[in-house]
Amino acid sequence: MTVRAAVAGASGYAGGELLRLLLAHPEVEIGALTGNSNAGQRLGALQPHLLPLADRVLAETTAEVLAGHDVVFLALPHGQSAAVAEHLGPDVLVVDMGADFRLADAADWEAFYGSPHAGTWPYGLPELPGARAALEGSKRVAVPGCYPTAVSLALYPAYTAGLAEPEAVIVAASGTSGAGKAPKPHLLGSEVMGSMSPYGVGGGHRHTPEMIQNLSAAAGERVAVSFTPTLAPMPRGILATCTAAAKEGVTAGTVRAAYDKAYADEPFVHLLPEGQWPATASVHGSNAVQVQVAYDAATRRIIAISAIDNLTKGTAGGAVQSMNLALGLPEGLGLSTIGVAP
Amino acid sequence: MTVRAAVAGASGYAGGELLRLLLAHPEVEIGALTGNSNAGQRLGALQPHLLPLADRVLAETTAEVLAGHDVVFLALPHGQSAAVAEHLGPDVLVVDMGADFRLADAADWEAFYGSPHAGTWPYGLPELPGARAALEGSKRVAVPGCYPTAVSLALYPAYTAGLAEPEAVIVAASGTSGAGKAPKPHLLGSEVMGSMSPYGVGGGHRHTPEMIQNLSAAAGERVAVSFTPTLAPMPRGILATCTAAAKEGVTAGTVRAAYDKAYADEPFVHLLPEGQWPATASVHGSNAVQVQVAYDAATRRIIAISAIDNLTKGTAGGAVQSMNLALGLPEGLGLSTIGVAP
Amino acid sequence: MTVRAAVAGASGYAGGELLRLLLAHPEVEIGALTGNSNAGQRLGALQPHLLPLADRVLAETTAEVLAGHDVVFLALPHGQSAAVAEHLGPDVLVVDMGADFRLADAADWEAFYGSPHAGTWPYGLPELPGARAALEGSKRVAVPGCYPTAVSLALYPAYTAGLAEPEAVIVAASGTSGAGKAPKPHLLGSEVMGSMSPYGVGGGHRHTPEMIQNLSAAAGERVAVSFTPTLAPMPRGILATCTAAAKEGVTAGTVRAAYDKAYADEPFVHLLPEGQWPATASVHGSNAVQVQVAYDAATRRIIAISAIDNLTKGTAGGAVQSMNLALGLPEGLGLSTIGVAP
Amino acid sequence: MTVRAAVAGASGYAGGELLRLLLAHPEVEIGALTGNSNAGQRLGALQPHLLPLADRVLAETTAEVLAGHDVVFLALPHGQSAAVAEHLGPDVLVVDMGADFRLADAADWEAFYGSPHAGTWPYGLPELPGARAALEGSKRVAVPGCYPTAVSLALYPAYTAGLAEPEAVIVAASGTSGAGKAPKPHLLGSEVMGSMSPYGVGGGHRHTPEMIQNLSAAAGERVAVSFTPTLAPMPRGILATCTAAAKEGVTAGTVRAAYDKAYADEPFVHLLPEGQWPATASVHGSNAVQVQVAYDAATRRIIAISAIDNLTKGTAGGAVQSMNLALGLPEGLGLSTIGVAP
Repeated sequence: MTVRAAVAGASGYAGGELLRLLLAHPEVEIGALTGNSNAGQRLGALQPHLLPLADRVLAETTAEVLAGHDVVFLALPHGQSAAVAEHLGPDVLVVDMGADFRLADAADWEAFYGSPHAGTWPYGLPELPGARAALEGSKRVAVPGCYPTAVSLALYPAYTAGLAEPEAVIVAASGTSGAGKAPKPHLLGSEVMGSMSPYGVGGGHRHTPEMIQNLSAAAGERVAVSFTPTLAPMPRGILATCTAAAKEGVTAGTVRAAYDKAYADEPFVHLLPEGQWPATASVHGSNAVQVQVAYDAATRRIIAISAIDNLTKGTAGGAVQSMNLALGLPEGLGLSTIGVAP
Repeated sequence: MTVRAAVAGASGYAGGELLRLLLAHPEVEIGALTGNSNAGQRLGALQPHLLPLADRVLAETTAEVLAGHDVVFLALPHGQSAAVAEHLGPDVLVVDMGADFRLADAADWEAFYGSPHAGTWPYGLPELPGARAALEGSKRVAVPGCYPTAVSLALYPAYTAGLAEPEAVIVAASGTSGAGKAPKPHLLGSEVMGSMSPYGVGGGHRHTPEMIQNLSAAAGERVAVSFTPTLAPMPRGILATCTAAAKEGVTAGTVRAAYDKAYADEPFVHLLPEGQWPATASVHGSNAVQVQVAYDAATRRIIAISAIDNLTKGTAGGAVQSMNLALGLPEGLGLSTIGVAP
Repeated sequence: MTVRAAVAGASGYAGGELLRLLLAHPEVEIGALTGNSNAGQRLGALQPHLLPLADRVLAETTAEVLAGHDVVFLALPHGQSAAVAEHLGPDVLVVDMGADFRLADAADWEAFYGSPHAGTWPYGLPELPGARAALEGSKRVAVPGCYPTAVSLALYPAYTAGLAEPEAVIVAASGTSGAGKAPKPHLLGSEVMGSMSPYGVGGGHRHTPEMIQNLSAAAGERVAVSFTPTLAPMPRGILATCTAAAKEGVTAGTVRAAYDKAYADEPFVHLLPEGQWPATASVHGSNAVQVQVAYDAATRRIIAISAIDNLTKGTAGGAVQSMNLALGLPEGLGLSTIGVAP
Repeated sequence: MTVRAAVAGASGYAGGELLRLLLAHPEVEIGALTGNSNAGQRLGALQPHLLPLADRVLAETTAEVLAGHDVVFLALPHGQSAAVAEHLGPDVLVVDMGADFRLADAADWEAFYGSPHAGTWPYGLPELPGARAALEGSKRVAVPGCYPTAVSLALYPAYTAGLAEPEAVIVAASGTSGAGKAPKPHLLGSEVMGSMSPYGVGGGHRHTPEMIQNLSAAAGERVAVSFTPTLAPMPRGILATCTAAAKEGVTAGTVRAAYDKAYADEPFVHLLPEGQWPATASVHGSNAVQVQVAYDAATRRIIAISAIDNLTKGTAGGAVQSMNLALGLPEGLGLSTIGVAP
């Protein structure tokens, strides 16, 4: 089986990471690559690390260019995917790496994005309860946000097991690639090296409703989420520190058992041995997730921490994993659990 | 007035930062400098940034060497300060930059440090209620830990104003200098660059009881603290994200007013204008503290965030500020609120 | 004596560093601050590390705004200084931190900058032979480029002593602040962290003729300069590795003696003890220059290496040092030789 | 064909990178893994990024443990490989990633390493003239040093084409992993972040004779090498800036033609299009080499610059590439030319 894949938005960080992974995928042939302001340029000038594609030239993002592929990946600014997807036909697998189709609740979408809701597609986080089945054979996939990927995998086992109160407090640190490749003063190397700073504090980050959606589904009740993202001086990686008060009767043992059970058979989620904690460097360039959990008896809180690569498992790796499921390929095909460290 | 100062532990990061500040202090003359394994070495080889002291040679840390000074700063591993302080006499100002005399509760000390409690000295965080008065004229000062400095200044106004429930959830990121200069594999540049990782998760960090002590004093009731420290890929700086549930009737306005009031006249604490958030780069090398606070109506939580330089306000700057108060000098003498950025 | 200073271009990195230094200068009072696209904004939003100036608002860069000061610093894009200086009158000290007045040779200027030559002002690198005298009492100062500062101080003693052949090969690494604050894709934190890359290779960098000018003056003959600048993953600092073939009869001893002599009385240039090498971290935020030199007998080359802070000694510190000389103040007033490390 | 491979020294950076590559190699089965001080520990604690090997336990480095494999990789401190290799028998492929067998000249070895010379093995840099043939079918391989890899590939085409004078001046920047995993104070994250510094200046670096050997072979005459290595604030990567005076008659065109010819068919060396320069980030985790070359007419010098990943092409990737040749496998099997960026 050879899968012909097009990538819309090939000049950005998400598109570049996707191409890195597709180049290593044994069943994928890379077709059309598009950009917008970068159309007409050699990929070698825009993504110099993708040596085998150096001489490819970016096309405009049009329905004609994207036609004739088995899979089309959309790495576009939010609000643009629906119009493109519409023209691709129901038989083409469309994997949206943007936000447009992640949320089930139209009101949530409108409150956070300020535009009409485009719809809801199967959610590309196979590790969540029920998600894998919905992805198998699907022709549409909404790839999760990077923070929701890290946070949901850190916390959902506590909620499915009924161990945690429905109020989660989450602080996450992200590498700068999460903020994209458009040049802005606060993202300059001079500004970010040596600096940690928060942003979107107080519930304003657009990934918050997605976390609420995932954790609430796991809990069977609405989970309130206090989420504070911070920008860290590194190009990649998310470390998510997630805590929630434990319900009555919870012990260190019941917490450990819930996580052992949740991740016993997950190929990409690695529950670390007790005493070892996640580090973003360990999953650099990898589709793996490191998870660890502790129960703090003094405060009666569960503390679950995960590390992912925001561009791999948090974006492009999740997209490929979902594509594999949608096409009936082995879920892990072309994906690695090995980080590039140090 | 010329103050003759000795520094025990001049080869480490705390000692080096203290010397940097003392060199800029108009009333201080730097006397004896001591080390242990480094005794006999030129300071120029150990602290090459301290050009004016390059030819000083470190002495052994003995009572004889430290005698005859107006102030003795102790930057020693915990457990060693009491024995040294004992020999210095009651008329010498002793400023302990270690942990030995910070905690009021002997049981807390023993639980976290596993050795007998040495005592309790006036606490060198002048911004806390009552602290300034206790420092004025004192001959003994316990300099706070770096994390408790950042956390207490972020959260105490919410507690003194009766706005927050007594359960704080805190996640802080620290630069690597907080872990000291002793070479350990996980502190190698190769390991820390590009990586965020937690440590001491689940209540184990020794700075936790100090935070509880400070916040409980502000609240007038015991405050439970869930504290997760993380190591960030930068040499200096702490960003502390501190949240607590709001009490009934709290609004964004009452929160803002409490912080405005607490910090209206504090020379080193800068409550940022609304919409601007702290960044560690802005206080690099400075004794300033950037604070911002938000009220998240959706979760009814107060989110207070502070940025400090862990070595300056978090250690050596706090020590000099306290020395000034103890000696009756202007509190800010020799200290700067200007960061070295970018 | 109180010197009233205006700064044109206060929102950039050079302007910000200058303000950091002027705030610490005992004889300077900070007057007008101007920007262009940023006029009307609070400095606290643009330079959040300059706490004492947070509430200052940037004015437009006009002759009226800049009038009435004792000193006007120009931190403007090249080509703009002459027009501004013209309106300031011959009695105002004008310190140009841009390139406009550095080169003596109009043809060099036109070849590298492509515009008419504005003129030549006394050159603000007091350590060069004859430079100090030309600066004393001058009303116009051209602050050197950051690379020429590092390179000239590393190599000129070898040329004045007649030890080196007139062909220098220089490779320098600079922190990203040298490239300024205007956001460009290749300067994003995501791009620069973890990466070293060259630029302006093969003689194209505009600082090359300035190096040739300085080294040729020292040598008494034209020195050819092969200069390769590289961008390093750090916000500040220049490390310049400069080599030249030794003339007949040169020994390690004659080289060492020449540098000892050149820098015996220079307050800001520190010739390191043999065996110790410069590091940019040691001069972070400082006006000091670390220099070391070796003679490689196997290749018969002199290797001189310097470290500076590109924004301090390389720009704003050099400007203040020159201002002090021009105004008859002690040369080092308000300047520090102490770095902020680690 | 399944190749069973043992790795002696699996806990260090070279060993870890080798395992990362071997895990992705379709014909290799990973056998014994040994350490010294780390024997008995889980690999998951030492190399947490190598998830598939997390439960492997390190054995002692003994002949018994290493017996019975098709290939044995030695990632040992220099001076230890000969004794181990001796016991492995002539039919086992031994790939030494240390220095012991790189130099042809025993006097060079003794001058730089101070111990008896162990011998000379086929040199694992297939791109050098004649090297590929010597590696095919060989049972012994000496993997080049990381700096000589970068430098030789940047400069050798200029020498084989007779374009350059036999005096090269080289300044290279290396990431910190090149200095290994043994904790030393100057390698702490606090020390290296934000700092560039040279070391081994003046001909003292042990990689110098290896560069001389390679370039002299290409030139057909002895090439003198002035080599200055610098430590850069990044975990991986080498940027080598290499210059030499051009011989009479050399033009930009003859230089370009020589490099075009040398690298037209090399799978791992990518001569960049004119105007684009190497960046270490582009080859992060990749076996590719980026090369660019310029001719500076003003100084009549050739400037050749290369970027490699010091751990991949500079160590473990070179080892795998050589293993492939030695075993008759396709040279690039299991190796990637795609970097992990940003």
